[in-house]
Amino acid sequence: MSHGICQPVGTSVLGQRLDDVADIARINREVRANSLDLLQTSHTLAGIDMALWDLLGRRRGEPVWRLLGHDQSTRKTPYASQLFGDEPQETRAKGKAQREAGFRAVKFGWGPYGQGDASTDAAHIAAAREGLGEDGILLVDAGTVWVDDVAAAAARLDALIEHRATWLEEPFISAALGAYKALAERAAPLRLAGGEGAHNFHMAQQMIDYAGLGYVQIDAGRMGISDSKRVADYAAQRDVRFVNHTFNSHIALSASLQAFAGHEQDDICEYPVEAKPLSREITQSLIERDSDGLVCAPDAPGLGMEIDTDALARYLVQVKITVDDARLYATPDVP
Amino acid sequence: MSHGICQPVGTSVLGQRLDDVADIARINREVRANSLDLLQTSHTLAGIDMALWDLLGRRRGEPVWRLLGHDQSTRKTPYASQLFGDEPQETRAKGKAQREAGFRAVKFGWGPYGQGDASTDAAHIAAAREGLGEDGILLVDAGTVWVDDVAAAAARLDALIEHRATWLEEPFISAALGAYKALAERAAPLRLAGGEGAHNFHMAQQMIDYAGLGYVQIDAGRMGISDSKRVADYAAQRDVRFVNHTFNSHIALSASLQAFAGHEQDDICEYPVEAKPLSREITQSLIERDSDGLVCAPDAPGLGMEIDTDALARYLVQVKITVDDARLYATPDVP
Repeated sequence: MSHGICQPVGTSVLGQRLDDVADIARINREVRANSLDLLQTSHTLAGIDMALWDLLGRRRGEPVWRLLGHDQSTRKTPYASQLFGDEPQETRAKGKAQREAGFRAVKFGWGPYGQGDASTDAAHIAAAREGLGEDGILLVDAGTVWVDDVAAAAARLDALIEHRATWLEEPFISAALGAYKALAERAAPLRLAGGEGAHNFHMAQQMIDYAGLGYVQIDAGRMGISDSKRVADYAAQRDVRFVNHTFNSHIALSASLQAFAGHEQDDICEYPVEAKPLSREITQSLIERDSDGLVCAPDAPGLGMEIDTDALARYLVQVKITVDDARLYATPDVP
Repeated sequence: MSHGICQPVGTSVLGQRLDDVADIARINREVRANSLDLLQTSHTLAGIDMALWDLLGRRRGEPVWRLLGHDQSTRKTPYASQLFGDEPQETRAKGKAQREAGFRAVKFGWGPYGQGDASTDAAHIAAAREGLGEDGILLVDAGTVWVDDVAAAAARLDALIEHRATWLEEPFISAALGAYKALAERAAPLRLAGGEGAHNFHMAQQMIDYAGLGYVQIDAGRMGISDSKRVADYAAQRDVRFVNHTFNSHIALSASLQAFAGHEQDDICEYPVEAKPLSREITQSLIERDSDGLVCAPDAPGLGMEIDTDALARYLVQVKITVDDARLYATPDVP
């Protein structure tokens, strides 16, 4: 569901009706909602940047976090991300199950949250707290559902505060800085989290400067390790907490942990628990929790992860691109 | 030169040396500098949005600007955009030539400006004013040369003010809102212009809110007509002047003029004078200046421009994309 914004533009355009100017606005909204995360330069560069750091670290025999200037890889409390249940009792059961699986911190997001009225949402938050127990760390992700509507988001604050949610994530789209700021001023002690949409340092900087964030969430798959590190350092200066945004593979998890590995104050991290088979199989090993249930960036050269090329080969498709019969691209062999 | 940021990512990466962490930073900078304007969703949507407005306008027999809510298409003073000369005397001659070609407003940009010391830049500004004459409208485009270095930009302010430049455009990258704001506070009566890098309403809104702009420059080829209109209206509320950013075809020029067609206070527009053959040949006619040297959005259905499909066909290349031997895409025939 959170990858719904990577769809081809045509899926939101072809076959649509065009009778009135309102249809143009609707088509615009649908394309932006479904495809705004197609950013080929940023995403390609992010992958290249990870590979560069890994390569240099392997040649030097140093973990990436040390090359970045950190002197230690501190342990973080991993949080399990999952969808809200359709009904509050299902949300309660999901919280309980993650707690039993050893996760003290759990994030609930999307699903029915923000789709109905505030009292239904409040029932989900109460159920999540019950399932998680009194000492659990409760995180809530609204998935940009209110776009830039401050009043709609504000109507959910009381329940979030009563049940001691640590943060409310992405009440609005990343660019709605003014809406974030207005909500942040009404939300204390609840803090706002956001920033996964930032695909370079400056976008994250703007959220830190103008959105009143308590937590800035950075996806190394979107902006690379180099810019993630700049954000982690800038956030530390501005007393904003840095958190990774990672929903898929453990090589992405390692890449995401490097930027804030040495920052003791940034003590929680997102940890993929509902990963697709490809995400699990791409590496020969995973970043497992230790006996205290904590995780850290590997103390091994580079990113400390080995690609499983045999597993990867099973997912390979053969793509060919020709221009006036000259071959522009063909899928390379996996070594 | 201004399209240098649309290069394939590989051109900045393949063949580079990787010996140190500084190399990673350099490769990151080069990729961002050379490729950050590859934004497939925004650019594809912008083209679709123009086509939707054109289609609806043709069906209704109304120009797009009227569908957008404007009750007139006001005439604008077109400015000719050109590069600075290599030496001040060449800059002077270029200003004189555009004035003789009937352009009262001329923008000089890129080339040596900002590459050397402030006194050389001052000599170019003085020469531009001389070439243009006392009553010419002098616009200066720094092409983001100072990135986010306020002091470097501020060293150029005295000459720009002395020679009565109307604006200094893009001293910094679009995202450097704080740098813009700091320079704007020192620049009066000179005003800052920027915004061509904005690929949606919110990015432009942030520049209007936080960058201290006097002029917001919007490229309809990047954000479409719908969002351009939102920016034009928002700028009017905030007493910021709206200007189009258009460097290529006259169909792009028509699309760019629609958003602010009815705004009398937004009285200048960019006008392509160094267009490539494809840009000139894509339409059957051009938006010509009237006897007063002014231009306006066509008073004709839709965008008021007819595509020259015969001319277009000469530029068509045959692209094929296959995935596991299934055809994903092939260049369609031009009707």
